[in-house]
Amino acid sequence: MIPEPPVYRIPKQSGAGFTLKRGEVLAVIDPQGEQVSDLMAFAADTPSEWLSSGRTFDYNETISLTTGHVLYSNRSRPMFTLLRDDVGQHDFLLTPCSTETFEILYPPGTADGHPSCFSNLLRAFEPFGIQPDQIPTTLNIFMNVVVGEGGRLRIGPPRSTAGQRLELRAEMDLIVGLTACSAEGSNNGSFGPIDYQIRPPAQEVQRS
Amino acid sequence: MIPEPPVYRIPKQSGAGFTLKRGEVLAVIDPQGEQVSDLMAFAADTPSEWLSSGRTFDYNETISLTTGHVLYSNRSRPMFTLLRDDVGQHDFLLTPCSTETFEILYPPGTADGHPSCFSNLLRAFEPFGIQPDQIPTTLNIFMNVVVGEGGRLRIGPPRSTAGQRLELRAEMDLIVGLTACSAEGSNNGSFGPIDYQIRPPAQEVQRS
Repeated sequence: MIPEPPVYRIPKQSGAGFTLKRGEVLAVIDPQGEQVSDLMAFAADTPSEWLSSGRTFDYNETISLTTGHVLYSNRSRPMFTLLRDDVGQHDFLLTPCSTETFEILYPPGTADGHPSCFSNLLRAFEPFGIQPDQIPTTLNIFMNVVVGEGGRLRIGPPRSTAGQRLELRAEMDLIVGLTACSAEGSNNGSFGPIDYQIRPPAQEVQRS
Repeated sequence: MIPEPPVYRIPKQSGAGFTLKRGEVLAVIDPQGEQVSDLMAFAADTPSEWLSSGRTFDYNETISLTTGHVLYSNRSRPMFTLLRDDVGQHDFLLTPCSTETFEILYPPGTADGHPSCFSNLLRAFEPFGIQPDQIPTTLNIFMNVVVGEGGRLRIGPPRSTAGQRLELRAEMDLIVGLTACSAEGSNNGSFGPIDYQIRPPAQEVQRS
């Protein structure tokens, strides 16, 4: 019997940084529902290689990523494969919320002291030597962004309900940053936590 | 009388690198029609600051960029304002075509020795010290990408006809790379050249 790996909790409006070995499976879980989790990853052996929304859209020929899709790096190498998607609605168009997001898009005064996914990702990546200018568009798990008439973007409440998850298999050794989103406009004001679990590669091998 | 600035021609399947001063206006012209031009820019004073599709989508709340829209850097600073758009259809979702694009998306054998916007941008930026991993999603001027049912991406022939242009005002001093696209799938196999012209800020001041 292989014991169940621990489930880690990212408290509301915060983030976590960790490494994944090739073959490990990252489960990102919304424990209470309606919460967004921003994910960014860099190649562990070459941290200047990063998870690329553009390469991912290119090679999958879609902006709607779900089970079976591969997420690519800027060097066109597979970084993740999506293994299980309970929700089917994620965003890879928009950047992590930042002080400037709250200044430009939110009512006056919102930005002052407001936590943000961008600053939480900076803290998560700092021990790995990743610089702020290296953080591009994030995979915004469970974020409900719809491209409407004439290209207009509408952000709705996440469709995730309590306990739903997205599972991603690492296709290379990775440095990963993950958040519980800080922006009220993205999580319907819920500011919930995010849970994550890392399963060893062995379980994948047994399953196949 | 201010003399008309020169028009530079980027030969088919190649690229150009140059600088813009704040207030200068870059006109990107499709001289023969149906051609795409990939554009990337970095802040001249801080080349680690780059033109960001994600910040631009965020703050404009659309993926369809046209006259009046501001293009932002990853630091949320305005880099360009779109002043004139004859075509009304550009792409900021996809990455420049690369050897890997031709390997993954094109028939076998296409990639061998095929010119690409990515390698042309590398050459354009090399004199400015910009590294390959710094090149993110480009603004693909005149590229006709439509988000269809279920997020599917369809690439059609550019709608640009001979002589049509996009004009961008630089909102900071910039290092710019620009191509005449190398990918047959993006320009309907036309492989045309791209022209560009840089107007001084003074004309803008006179006009207002």
